[in-house]
Amino acid sequence: MLPGVGVFGTGSTARVLVPLLKAEGFEVHAVWGKSEEEAGCLAKELGIPFHTSRSDDVLLHQDVDLVCVYIPPSMTRQIAVKALGIGKNVLCEKAATAVDSFKMVTAARYYPQLLSIMGNTLRFLPAFAAMRQLLVERYVGEMQVCDVRVYGPSLLDQAYGWTCEELMGGGGLHTVGSSVIDLLSYLTGERAHRVHGLLRTFVQQNGLIRGIRRVTSDDFCFFQMLMGGTGSRSGGVCCTVTLNFNMPGSFVHEVMVVGSTGRLVARGTELYGQRNGSKSEELLLGDSGWVGPEVKEMPLPHLQGLSSMVKALRESFQAHEERRSWARGPVAMAPTFEDGLYVQTVVEAVKRSSCSGEWECVEIMSQEPDPNHNLCEALQRNKN
Amino acid sequence: MLPGVGVFGTGSTARVLVPLLKAEGFEVHAVWGKSEEEAGCLAKELGIPFHTSRSDDVLLHQDVDLVCVYIPPSMTRQIAVKALGIGKNVLCEKAATAVDSFKMVTAARYYPQLLSIMGNTLRFLPAFAAMRQLLVERYVGEMQVCDVRVYGPSLLDQAYGWTCEELMGGGGLHTVGSSVIDLLSYLTGERAHRVHGLLRTFVQQNGLIRGIRRVTSDDFCFFQMLMGGTGSRSGGVCCTVTLNFNMPGSFVHEVMVVGSTGRLVARGTELYGQRNGSKSEELLLGDSGWVGPEVKEMPLPHLQGLSSMVKALRESFQAHEERRSWARGPVAMAPTFEDGLYVQTVVEAVKRSSCSGEWECVEIMSQEPDPNHNLCEALQRNKN
Repeated sequence: MLPGVGVFGTGSTARVLVPLLKAEGFEVHAVWGKSEEEAGCLAKELGIPFHTSRSDDVLLHQDVDLVCVYIPPSMTRQIAVKALGIGKNVLCEKAATAVDSFKMVTAARYYPQLLSIMGNTLRFLPAFAAMRQLLVERYVGEMQVCDVRVYGPSLLDQAYGWTCEELMGGGGLHTVGSSVIDLLSYLTGERAHRVHGLLRTFVQQNGLIRGIRRVTSDDFCFFQMLMGGTGSRSGGVCCTVTLNFNMPGSFVHEVMVVGSTGRLVARGTELYGQRNGSKSEELLLGDSGWVGPEVKEMPLPHLQGLSSMVKALRESFQAHEERRSWARGPVAMAPTFEDGLYVQTVVEAVKRSSCSGEWECVEIMSQEPDPNHNLCEALQRNKN
Repeated sequence: MLPGVGVFGTGSTARVLVPLLKAEGFEVHAVWGKSEEEAGCLAKELGIPFHTSRSDDVLLHQDVDLVCVYIPPSMTRQIAVKALGIGKNVLCEKAATAVDSFKMVTAARYYPQLLSIMGNTLRFLPAFAAMRQLLVERYVGEMQVCDVRVYGPSLLDQAYGWTCEELMGGGGLHTVGSSVIDLLSYLTGERAHRVHGLLRTFVQQNGLIRGIRRVTSDDFCFFQMLMGGTGSRSGGVCCTVTLNFNMPGSFVHEVMVVGSTGRLVARGTELYGQRNGSKSEELLLGDSGWVGPEVKEMPLPHLQGLSSMVKALRESFQAHEERRSWARGPVAMAPTFEDGLYVQTVVEAVKRSSCSGEWECVEIMSQEPDPNHNLCEALQRNKN
């Protein structure tokens, strides 16, 4: 039986998600917005019976068994952790910091019977699922290099907000790079152990953001990841990622994996391959012909990925009689909160590298940093 | 009046160059090969009256006024410097080291009346000449990012040789990266001041190179260059270059410049552009329809560039009555030996960075390192 859904957020993703959920048979009972007006507006538009600006009203809503959290990164952790504590299943967008991600992991570990997955949806895109399968079957032989590029128009909101602020989780690396980092660990089956990166904010002010306000989040980012946990620099897959969001009017989303005997390239939602020795590229998976809504802010690979994920969620819940029970199989490929922590750790390492100019190690947090650490240090200094 | 030409080398470039020279009206009088057989074979094939394996026989040949040096990097310096000393004009492929490049610069400075240009020919490709012009006219506004990718099949020769040896000037960075580094300084009008890079040799042995022999030259390389001499990391154009020569059956040559108001992309020999606000890319310069020879080892952008350079050389010499005199105008855009030294310095900085993992400064040599330096140090140590 499908669970009732409560949605946090009134942005473009939430706007797309609700119709997708309904199309699969989910009932959306409640929506939360940061103001009553925004929530009411979306509820009216999408026919959601209940709206509110108080998070508890959704979390404690008796018909809500699955909470979908599509709000700015700085607020996700609080909602996700609370939802799990109340015993609800959670689908959640990324957090703003590794510490927040770690708190989410702790909560997810504490409630293993509850569903807790990250909102990165690229893994679910059929082209990437097929790519993963072909990589496992050694279509490219020994993997050598992954090369990803995403080019598009500015990610900034119309008005000044979190998208402009690096510390609030804005910027190309955090917003789009996250999903690429997650995807590459899924495709290669390995995690980055060392990263190097360069971030830039080319457009610091525009027609709407001016005066004393200045954009601090990156609109250009280039990073490299050495995969595999060996610690040796010579082995393992080498990933390069180029993100450029100063390209209005264009959208490029290309993921290439080159190996010893061939290569695979996903361009947008299509998958191509070429084995060494063959004369030309073959189309391995064509575009399925997207019939859902077109969303200006959301590129097709993400949109179709989201749609596939909602389908997987439906299969997962359908397998059981009880509203809150779910089967692991259909969502086994979904990114867990642990994956979310890994991604956030890589993002922070890339930012560190951009400051230091050096290769930075990716070290996953294994215990929460003591919030009194700085205080203790200060006391220590006073004592001496 | 066109000068008589002597050609060093029997490889694929020399093989293409001779017909191109003849087509423009140059007479090729002599060819040098590393063995009599190789030289004789090429001379017969291309109808060159004189062949030899002794370099002086070409350099001192009375009908030779222009010496074209297309031989392995470790040997170019010796021929180029000697040719200038004898009073001949020189067109020369890159050297193997910055020290060699510096010696070439010294010779070129000493004989400013002689023509001395590098064999990197990408600048001459009409698409790049047009790109440069549009950049000067601010088609893209303020330049932000250059992104270059070159993918292709292995650069290794059939037999074991210098192409396999990093120290002999083999590898993607030295062979192809050089021409990209030169091109980017031409396009941006700036030089790199800091670089970061990663080199890999994914294929260390193959069917022909095995046993104790091992390839040391890179088949994968990506590097970043921060342009402009300010020393500040926040300003200046940011270049990223990806070279991958593990892609048999493909050839990609793409150079993109993104700026504040638009972008330009050269794909192969064609130039496209898009200004911010316009709906689609426009074709700015189509393929002219190459009617010359097809060369497997030589991608079309290099081949057409070479052809355009030969035309420019013809114009340069035609302007004067005297066989050895030339006009600067038509070859003003050609890379000088000073440019060659810059390129070689960047190549070595990228290699250093790949070892150190750190950003490396590009410091152009201003005096020849003392060859007895190591000896002196050893003596110094003994004394103490």
